[in-house]
Amino acid sequence: MIEATDFRDAMSLLAAAVNVITTKGAAGLYGFTASAVCSVTDSPPTLLVCMNQAARSHGHFIDNKILSVNVLGAQHEALSNAFASNLSTQDRFAHGSWTTLATGAPILQDALVSFDCIIEDITEVGTHSVFMCRVVGIRHADPKNSIDDDTYDGTDVSTDASTGESLVYFNRAYHHVGQVKHIETL
Amino acid sequence: MIEATDFRDAMSLLAAAVNVITTKGAAGLYGFTASAVCSVTDSPPTLLVCMNQAARSHGHFIDNKILSVNVLGAQHEALSNAFASNLSTQDRFAHGSWTTLATGAPILQDALVSFDCIIEDITEVGTHSVFMCRVVGIRHADPKNSIDDDTYDGTDVSTDASTGESLVYFNRAYHHVGQVKHIETL
Repeated sequence: MIEATDFRDAMSLLAAAVNVITTKGAAGLYGFTASAVCSVTDSPPTLLVCMNQAARSHGHFIDNKILSVNVLGAQHEALSNAFASNLSTQDRFAHGSWTTLATGAPILQDALVSFDCIIEDITEVGTHSVFMCRVVGIRHADPKNSIDDDTYDGTDVSTDASTGESLVYFNRAYHHVGQVKHIETL
Repeated sequence: MIEATDFRDAMSLLAAAVNVITTKGAAGLYGFTASAVCSVTDSPPTLLVCMNQAARSHGHFIDNKILSVNVLGAQHEALSNAFASNLSTQDRFAHGSWTTLATGAPILQDALVSFDCIIEDITEVGTHSVFMCRVVGIRHADPKNSIDDDTYDGTDVSTDASTGESLVYFNRAYHHVGQVKHIETL
């Protein structure tokens, strides 16, 4: 039997992007920091988010049935800490500037990229829930680079847009990965 | 409707550790490179791996019912490329030195850390399968730091062990994250 502490020590060596997951709806406004997020398939566009069932907001995410995944940049360490702290929802969202896309879940204005999602399925595994999420909106850090179901015309996304540094958690510390690109004069 | 290409462009900004996933058993020996791996829960120790159902080895992983996750270090770019290429299984495994833990799935000797797993459940989502994997063995890069069900005595893992750089994929390029630590004289 692998001990939980040994598993956590080993998992600390799996580098992962840091994200803030949010929801808003009849069940209220909530947000938390998570690194257990990954892409599942592009057909249909789907990602997954793992969440502790003991988290105070767990049931509210399920009730709202929507969430956003905001991929943090190097400038977001304080925001990451706020959404992983004991702060109230109001005090958490005092960090950062927020907008919305299709579902109404808060979208961080200067996230590297944000995914606006409908929770399509939930798999319970031990203490955690795995939310399978259909992506219905995407927003890049550049305000012009926004897609959602209603407004996307297929022309406003450029992979040559400015790309900031990623905030990555590895070996129980933050790291900054990548570099700012400005390929505007190609 | 979010287009697959837009989803992939956005997902390229979710930094992720690079891993080689292997299996060995009655269905044969196979391995592939994957970044869609994440921790699920420590109770019981569980991780998940997403795999394209169209991959030639997909059914063989299901038949063998076991896999290992080998978290790559900065020195493993060539090995990562080999396991993501059209090379035969034999030519892929010619890269790296391999051992085993409890299940018999190949374990990369100098991976940052390896997880030896039993596939406990499979969820199909669009084109991909999500393997929920119970961790039954852990091996750190230092050969002394190995745990499995049969031999673990609870004393041979140190979080102060040498920790190399992580191989991370972000913005469609490899990056090296972290630094080598030798905290042996604390």
